[in-house]
Amino acid sequence: MPDLMGALKRLVLGRPTREFAPRTKPRPLPVRSALALLAPDALSSVAYAPDEIVLALAAAGLAGVALSPWVGLAIAGVMAVVIASYRQTIKEYPQGGGDYTVAKENLGLMAGGVVGGAAMVDSLLTVAVSVSAGAHYFAAIVPGLEHHTQAVAIGLVGVVTVASLRGLKLLDKTVIVAAYGFLGVVGLTALTGGLQALTGNLAATPAHGLEVIPAASYEHGLTVLGVGLLVLRAFSSGAVALTGVQTIATGVQTFREPKARNAARSLGFLGLACAALLIGTLVLANRVGVVFVADPATQLRYANGTPVGPEYHQEPILAQIAETVFSAVRPVFFLVTAVIGLLLILAASTAFRWVPALMSMLAQDGFMPKQFFRRSDRRVAAHGIVTLGLGSAGLIALAGASVTRLVQLYIVGVFISFTISQLGMLRHWNARLPLAQSSRERHRMAGARLVNAVGLGLTAVALAIVVVTKFTHGAWLSLGLVAGAFGFMVSVRWHYRKVAEELRIASDDRADLGLPGRVHAIVLVSAMNRATARAVAYARATRPTTIEAVTVAVDMAQVGQLRRAWDELRVPVTLRILDSPVREITGPVIAYIRTLRQRATGDLVMLYIPEKVVRHWWERWLHNRSADRLMSRLRHVRGVVVATVPWQLGAASSPAPAVPPAPAASPDLAAPPAPPVPPAPAAPPELTGPAG
Amino acid sequence: MPDLMGALKRLVLGRPTREFAPRTKPRPLPVRSALALLAPDALSSVAYAPDEIVLALAAAGLAGVALSPWVGLAIAGVMAVVIASYRQTIKEYPQGGGDYTVAKENLGLMAGGVVGGAAMVDSLLTVAVSVSAGAHYFAAIVPGLEHHTQAVAIGLVGVVTVASLRGLKLLDKTVIVAAYGFLGVVGLTALTGGLQALTGNLAATPAHGLEVIPAASYEHGLTVLGVGLLVLRAFSSGAVALTGVQTIATGVQTFREPKARNAARSLGFLGLACAALLIGTLVLANRVGVVFVADPATQLRYANGTPVGPEYHQEPILAQIAETVFSAVRPVFFLVTAVIGLLLILAASTAFRWVPALMSMLAQDGFMPKQFFRRSDRRVAAHGIVTLGLGSAGLIALAGASVTRLVQLYIVGVFISFTISQLGMLRHWNARLPLAQSSRERHRMAGARLVNAVGLGLTAVALAIVVVTKFTHGAWLSLGLVAGAFGFMVSVRWHYRKVAEELRIASDDRADLGLPGRVHAIVLVSAMNRATARAVAYARATRPTTIEAVTVAVDMAQVGQLRRAWDELRVPVTLRILDSPVREITGPVIAYIRTLRQRATGDLVMLYIPEKVVRHWWERWLHNRSADRLMSRLRHVRGVVVATVPWQLGAASSPAPAVPPAPAASPDLAAPPAPPVPPAPAAPPELTGPAG
Repeated sequence: MPDLMGALKRLVLGRPTREFAPRTKPRPLPVRSALALLAPDALSSVAYAPDEIVLALAAAGLAGVALSPWVGLAIAGVMAVVIASYRQTIKEYPQGGGDYTVAKENLGLMAGGVVGGAAMVDSLLTVAVSVSAGAHYFAAIVPGLEHHTQAVAIGLVGVVTVASLRGLKLLDKTVIVAAYGFLGVVGLTALTGGLQALTGNLAATPAHGLEVIPAASYEHGLTVLGVGLLVLRAFSSGAVALTGVQTIATGVQTFREPKARNAARSLGFLGLACAALLIGTLVLANRVGVVFVADPATQLRYANGTPVGPEYHQEPILAQIAETVFSAVRPVFFLVTAVIGLLLILAASTAFRWVPALMSMLAQDGFMPKQFFRRSDRRVAAHGIVTLGLGSAGLIALAGASVTRLVQLYIVGVFISFTISQLGMLRHWNARLPLAQSSRERHRMAGARLVNAVGLGLTAVALAIVVVTKFTHGAWLSLGLVAGAFGFMVSVRWHYRKVAEELRIASDDRADLGLPGRVHAIVLVSAMNRATARAVAYARATRPTTIEAVTVAVDMAQVGQLRRAWDELRVPVTLRILDSPVREITGPVIAYIRTLRQRATGDLVMLYIPEKVVRHWWERWLHNRSADRLMSRLRHVRGVVVATVPWQLGAASSPAPAVPPAPAASPDLAAPPAPPVPPAPAAPPELTGPAG
Repeated sequence: MPDLMGALKRLVLGRPTREFAPRTKPRPLPVRSALALLAPDALSSVAYAPDEIVLALAAAGLAGVALSPWVGLAIAGVMAVVIASYRQTIKEYPQGGGDYTVAKENLGLMAGGVVGGAAMVDSLLTVAVSVSAGAHYFAAIVPGLEHHTQAVAIGLVGVVTVASLRGLKLLDKTVIVAAYGFLGVVGLTALTGGLQALTGNLAATPAHGLEVIPAASYEHGLTVLGVGLLVLRAFSSGAVALTGVQTIATGVQTFREPKARNAARSLGFLGLACAALLIGTLVLANRVGVVFVADPATQLRYANGTPVGPEYHQEPILAQIAETVFSAVRPVFFLVTAVIGLLLILAASTAFRWVPALMSMLAQDGFMPKQFFRRSDRRVAAHGIVTLGLGSAGLIALAGASVTRLVQLYIVGVFISFTISQLGMLRHWNARLPLAQSSRERHRMAGARLVNAVGLGLTAVALAIVVVTKFTHGAWLSLGLVAGAFGFMVSVRWHYRKVAEELRIASDDRADLGLPGRVHAIVLVSAMNRATARAVAYARATRPTTIEAVTVAVDMAQVGQLRRAWDELRVPVTLRILDSPVREITGPVIAYIRTLRQRATGDLVMLYIPEKVVRHWWERWLHNRSADRLMSRLRHVRGVVVATVPWQLGAASSPAPAVPPAPAASPDLAAPPAPPVPPAPAAPPELTGPAG
């Protein structure tokens, strides 16, 4: 079974030799590349945030949608505070690690654990949301995909997973190109649209003629309370535009020196770009009259009053805008939409890059199985990557690739991290402020603390709004997932602490450093062959106090043959034959070793097992099955060490070079190469051997 | 992964402690029990054979069905010859093993292989056919099951598989009761029906009013050629009644002494019972006017000419007879049908009992992975049983639980075995005849040879008829499966022979018995704790030529801590720190061992790895991952023995008793309990150690 898994892994991960050359430590990158590599997460959220804002406002009909630029402005304001705060985080924690490090250092390990759990859930949702959104953009330009976005999204997750597993350098390059391409095409669209608007040439979207049917609660127009609730909902959905800004704070080490300064400047640039894109998109969306609702079939009707029906396919807002602006040059519309779709899908690769690093960080603090610490180990990283791929595919299936549903889940996790991180920074400044050396430094710190205090207030309020307004829409699932991840991490940590405590050497406890008195070597044999001969030779070479070979009488004919060969070759070790009335090997051997151990508790029993090493995984099924079982059982017997003596099948057809017995440390113990020891009587009651 | 499988296995197989007490060798049984335990296979085939005969003849309309008792008589004749022949086999091969042994001993191992392959396929089909037939009987008395026989059959295979896995004694007892119960209820039905016929009170079946539409080729009445073909087809289908008679020849060892005589007499009795049942059923079926066709929807119509339609449910013949005979006492009809259904399902358990024995026999000759030789080992037997369950469930699904289709597959395999076995016995007598001591013995042998010659002729003709008339109806699949099983067995045997050849010790080749010159002990450590201390102590106890501890610098903080603890505790072994730029453990250790080996090719490297033995399978995921990988990679490096030093977590909270160093065999090698060796400088270029 494990070997079959190995074969499958090799198929996906590449040839086995690669495993011997793990990826080297990534070299720091120039600002341009590092920024582009870390930006897609933030950029992608700006691509789908307008849809969520417009959709929330559309519940009150087109009058509501007109509010969208103002909601966008409010989100841009929060974004500015959050980005200012993360620029501070970058300067204070230039080693990277982001929210997790901030929480751990300032609020304790358990707060770090919560952030870590949230980050794990967020990485699942980053993939699920951005790939689902990407699938909708592709559906806008590839006819026939409209009603298969779920299958397309799951397929794309598979592609990104495999690409991440193989660690293609090409993927990194594509991400960089796509990030700048995205800025370029969206900028081009905004610019062209803006010019068209100024010159009065801006057309209306093809969807412009549709009417939005307001929800029942809004059909008598907007009340003050109604507007308030509406804006809150739109704000809490649009807050998803903030996701991804923390990626740069996490990946400071990706940048070239001066790392912190480069990262902070990049974050500032990214924040400006995101804010401009968000507001620009919403303004333009209003001008061209986009129509975007949660459920087109029930919420939209033609001007003549007929509902659009289930066949209607609603395009994402950026696609609607691009289609309008470039209605005269369709190929440009296709290009713009394709680049946006590509960026959304590649944004998922940020999470795949980030998860092994996150797990490594968590593993270092005992929150994850310790093998994850070695994130450069392909196989270890593969576990994280495959889990991420499967988990996000599962979420996509669960949400039917609905970006709106997934966004509800996503925001909760992100804002948990944001809030805890802001709180951590606040404590950080509180602790640092009394240590300030000059009034200027104190002034700077007080300003920084204010930024974090405002940030904490805003993100905490946003989190509260999201949890309250969206609890039944999926926030409960997010909270459950974060709690589950946290619970898992805490129990792993608890296990490691318990084990470490059990294994701790007390200063007055030197018992385990004492040597066992005698060493009894037992060679497990089943037939007389070169593998057996090697095991006997190796066991003898260790010069044990006593040595004997043991076989289990499963097949009388075979035992007789072994006995004859043993005597004929004059093997200088006693052969003991254990009886097994039920043709079983493990039981008699363990019983025999137990009696040996009972006779002398302080002694060490070394069991040498000849092992045939096969060349193909499926051949393993044909060899060593009893030995494997025996070994797994013997693990539970104290004072027994199992040594496997491998024989590499097919490795060399010629016999091994004859090794002359080298002068051993003590000549009286060195056994002659093949002393003519008289054949021992079958199974003498005591342990005997030439070295005993 | 393997541990998860283990947990699942425990769930199905029972508590893990059971593994320590494998089933003891089955005790020989008195004739009554042994016969009943081995009979269901043969009895069950008599239950469904009449259906197949009637169905084949019904192609020519009711006129054809009237021939059924004569076909039954012909089959009973063949059965008499085959049974006479197997009685001889029992006497000549009282050790059991049946057809496989006969073929192997007289026709060579490859003929045995073919019989073995056929027997494997037959065991799949025994289960598939008898459980499908059983499902149809239950459908006759449980309303609502009529159109779900496939699901019912697959579910029942699952039940029998689990029961066989757990080796319930209750199952054996149920089989014995069901076998006699079957004889009782079918006998009662025949007797009652016979009396009713004599007294003129025998009613007609409820299906009697239906008309059978003859196939196109028969609609102008019966020609001589037509009758011939019809009878051949009916004969070849009805020949399935012979299956199961070989079971007793295979299981001679189940009987109490005198085994051979008891088995031969039992077989005779069973043959008589089967022949009587077959002919009795067919006669009675004709008298009550049963109607049984391959496809009721197209082949049956009501007297008024309307087809019966797809809703019509056709009952098996024995159920139709019982329903007619006991029409006045419905509960008896229910009882009779239930007992027949139960016997059919329990007949499958014969195959489950037989498969581990068959695989053990094949494994002894190298035809199967050798672990199957230990058939009393629960885990090993479980593999065979689960494979049988899944395979037969697959066949049922493939055939839609149609007994008719499965029977076509079944007969091919059975008659391959029959024919080869008869041929083997013929050669057996040919070889024995010249050695006869007296004319009386010669006479007896010649008679026996004649029986086998007739048997060979009949079974070979039957096989040819089945293959020719049924090739496109499934015989091709049977032949393919038998060939596949044979190919698998031959390739396993070839692999073992190749390995044995490679490992064979030539008389002039004593190279592997030579001792390696020096032993270099390396203890792999990652942290200083009691498990590490134990590994160091054990490694020192083996008094190697040189000893050192090795760690890989994955986490600098951890290495520093280890270094300090090492020096503080004055561990009397040098600690070498290997650099790992990419945080990987396996590579640096292997590279280091390779350089050691290059320096002294004839030396032996013993790597001691402290292993934490966890109590729950899922905890394994948290420990020893690097060690496991290292071990699997090191298997391919020559001259390296890996010794795992287990620490049983949670086994004892108190420290191990301090062991005073016992007087060693050579005092100059015995290391003092904890010599105050000065802390070694980090990683000296040569291998050093206190024992060096």
